[in-house]
Amino acid sequence: MKIIRPTLLLDKTKCLQNIKRMSDKADSLNIRLRPHFKTPQSAKIAEWIRDTGVNSCTVSSVKMAEYFFNHGWKDITIAFPVNMLEAELINKIAKEIQLNIIVVSKNAVSALKDNIESALGVFIKIDTGTHRTGVSGFSLIDEILEELKKNPLLEFKGFLSHSGHTYHARSVEEVEAIHSKEIELMSELKQKYISAFPHLEISVGDTPSCSISKDFEGITEIRPGNYIFYDVMQQQIGSCSFDDIAVCLACPVVAKHPERNEIIVHGGAVHLSKDFIRDENDQKIYGYVVKLTDNGWSDPLADTYVRGLSQEHGIIRAGSRFFEEVKEGQIIGILPVHSCLTADAMNEYYTLEGEKISMMSKTS
Amino acid sequence: MKIIRPTLLLDKTKCLQNIKRMSDKADSLNIRLRPHFKTPQSAKIAEWIRDTGVNSCTVSSVKMAEYFFNHGWKDITIAFPVNMLEAELINKIAKEIQLNIIVVSKNAVSALKDNIESALGVFIKIDTGTHRTGVSGFSLIDEILEELKKNPLLEFKGFLSHSGHTYHARSVEEVEAIHSKEIELMSELKQKYISAFPHLEISVGDTPSCSISKDFEGITEIRPGNYIFYDVMQQQIGSCSFDDIAVCLACPVVAKHPERNEIIVHGGAVHLSKDFIRDENDQKIYGYVVKLTDNGWSDPLADTYVRGLSQEHGIIRAGSRFFEEVKEGQIIGILPVHSCLTADAMNEYYTLEGEKISMMSKTS
Repeated sequence: MKIIRPTLLLDKTKCLQNIKRMSDKADSLNIRLRPHFKTPQSAKIAEWIRDTGVNSCTVSSVKMAEYFFNHGWKDITIAFPVNMLEAELINKIAKEIQLNIIVVSKNAVSALKDNIESALGVFIKIDTGTHRTGVSGFSLIDEILEELKKNPLLEFKGFLSHSGHTYHARSVEEVEAIHSKEIELMSELKQKYISAFPHLEISVGDTPSCSISKDFEGITEIRPGNYIFYDVMQQQIGSCSFDDIAVCLACPVVAKHPERNEIIVHGGAVHLSKDFIRDENDQKIYGYVVKLTDNGWSDPLADTYVRGLSQEHGIIRAGSRFFEEVKEGQIIGILPVHSCLTADAMNEYYTLEGEKISMMSKTS
Repeated sequence: MKIIRPTLLLDKTKCLQNIKRMSDKADSLNIRLRPHFKTPQSAKIAEWIRDTGVNSCTVSSVKMAEYFFNHGWKDITIAFPVNMLEAELINKIAKEIQLNIIVVSKNAVSALKDNIESALGVFIKIDTGTHRTGVSGFSLIDEILEELKKNPLLEFKGFLSHSGHTYHARSVEEVEAIHSKEIELMSELKQKYISAFPHLEISVGDTPSCSISKDFEGITEIRPGNYIFYDVMQQQIGSCSFDDIAVCLACPVVAKHPERNEIIVHGGAVHLSKDFIRDENDQKIYGYVVKLTDNGWSDPLADTYVRGLSQEHGIIRAGSRFFEEVKEGQIIGILPVHSCLTADAMNEYYTLEGEKISMMSKTS
C-alpha cells in the first residue's frame, strides 16, 4: 500500500490479540464481555470480536445502536443516559432485539412513559466516583425503581457503573484502588436488591480496570472498549505495553527544522484529536513516534514525541539520531494518545495488508 | 426543524455578516482576500464568499484543493509545506487552474524536480515567530530561490506567513504587537527582493490580526479562515463579540445533578473537539452555553460553561437560575471554543431554517 497522506493503520494481529486476551479473561472469570463499540465504530472489527464468542455489545448513542443493529447485533446496551427525544428510533430497534438503556433519574423514567412502545431493559447508572453522571444513594435508587414499576415495558435489569476516573490514574495500584472501591459499592447494591430482583445484573467496566484487575467478584458483565486498540494513555496508566497498541497514524514528513530538532508532518488535530498526556517532565505529549517497518511499526523512538498539533500540522520534537536520519517525503508513524478519538476523527482504517475498514458514518 | 441529537447549527445571517465585513475590509484596504477554507470545508459556504467578489482561496491539504477545484475554484493556495508524495494530484489540479504551493526548504524544491509536470506558483513560507514551520534568515531564502530558478515550471510568487501565535494572545494590544512585527519583517523582505521580483507578493493572515488590525501596508493578500464563523477563543482574544459567532452545537440535555449544579448533554469530544480556553479564574472552558430561541440563540448564560468533555458527554456547570429552569429532553446550545475543529468533527451544518449544508468527505 502506498501511503501519501495521513492514514490510520490498524495492525490486525495486535488487534486480534487484544480482542482474544479480553475475551479469554471474561471466559475464565465466567463473566459476560459486552465490549464498548464506541472505540472501533466498525461492523468489521465487531465481527472479529463476535468470532471469539461475544454476542452482546455496548454503544454510546442511539445512532450507534442502529448501526450495530443493522449489522446483526441482537443485544445492545446504550451506555448513555437515555435521550427521550430519540424514542422513535429506540422503539424501532427495541421491537426487533434486546435493547437496554440507562437511566439516572426518576424524571427520565417518567418521560419514557409516553414515548416507549417496545420492551426495554433498563439499568440504573451508579456514580462510583467519576462524578460525570449517575445516581448515588439508596433513596434515589428506590425512587427510580418505584417509577419503573409503573411501566411494564421497562424491565429493570440491574446496576451499571463506569469508573472513568481510572483514566486519571497513572499506576496499576491507583487503578486497583479505584476498581476495588467500585466492586465494593456495586456488591453492596447487589446484596441490598438481589432478593427483590433475583436476576439482578451488575455491569462495570473501564479499560484500565478490566485490563489490570483480577477481582470481578459478583460482577455480571464488563464493558471495556479501548482495549481493542489501546493507546499511549493506556500505556501510561499501565493497562498495556506499547507493543499492544494496534493503531498508528501514518504521516508524511513535510519539513525539518534543524535549529530546534523539529519535524513537521501532515497529521494534526483533525486526525489525532487534541487529547494529550503529560510525561514525567510535565511535557505535553500528543503522541509518540515510531518508524514504519515491513510488517508494522517499531517501538517508540527515544526522546521523540509530538509536542503540538494544529489543524493539519503535527510538530514533532525529535531525538538527534532520528532527526538526522528522517527525510522529507518519508512516512512515519504516530501512536495516538487516545485511540477512540483518533479513530472517530479518521473515520476509516487500513490494515497493514492494505484492506480498507469502514466505520459508521459521521453525518446524518 | 426538530433537533434530537447533536447538530451543528449555522446562523447564516451572522455568517454572511462576517463574510461581508472581511470582504469589505480587504476591498477598502485594496488587498486581496484569499480566505482559508479549512474552516468551513464547504462548497456552499464558499459560494457565499464568492458572492462578495472573492475569487481565490486557501486550503490546508491537496485533497481540500481538489474538493474546491471540483467546485469551480480557479486560484488556490495550499498553505501547507508541499507534500511531494501527492505530486500526482497536484499535477492534475495545476494543469487546469492556478495552483500555488509553499516551500520551506531547498530540499523540498529539489524533490519537486522529478515530480512536477504543470506550472505551479510557489511561496516561500516565512517563520514570523510562531516557530511551527517556515524559513528565517536571508541565506536560506537565497538557497531556495537559487533552487527554484532551476525549474521553469516553478514560478516564485512571493513570501507567505502565518502569525499563529496571535492565538495565544489575550488582548487586542498583544495581537497588534505580533502583527506589527510580522508586517515589519515581511516589508523588509519585500524591500530586499522587489527589484529582482517586481511582481513579488506578500501573503499574511491569521484571523485575530485580520479582524483587529488596520495596518496592512505593503501586503498583497490576507488569508483568514476562522472569521467566517468565529468562536469562543476568538472572542477571548478580542477578534469578535459573542454575537458574531455563527455556529452553535445544539445538544439534548440528558441528566441533571442538583448536588453539583451540573447538567449532562449529548455533545462531547467527538462533536466539539477537545480544545479549551482558560477563563480569568484559570478554569478550563470547553464552550459557553446559550439558549436556543425562535430565530437563533441567546447570549452566553451567566456562570454557565462546559467544564469537561468525554467522547459523547458534555458536562456543564450551570448558574443556579439556568439550572432550575433547564429540563431533561430540552435542547440547549454550546458555542464552540474552536469552530474549525468543531466543524471538522461534525462534518455537516444545518442552517436555522433547517437546510443541510454538506462538507468535504473525511474518508478516502
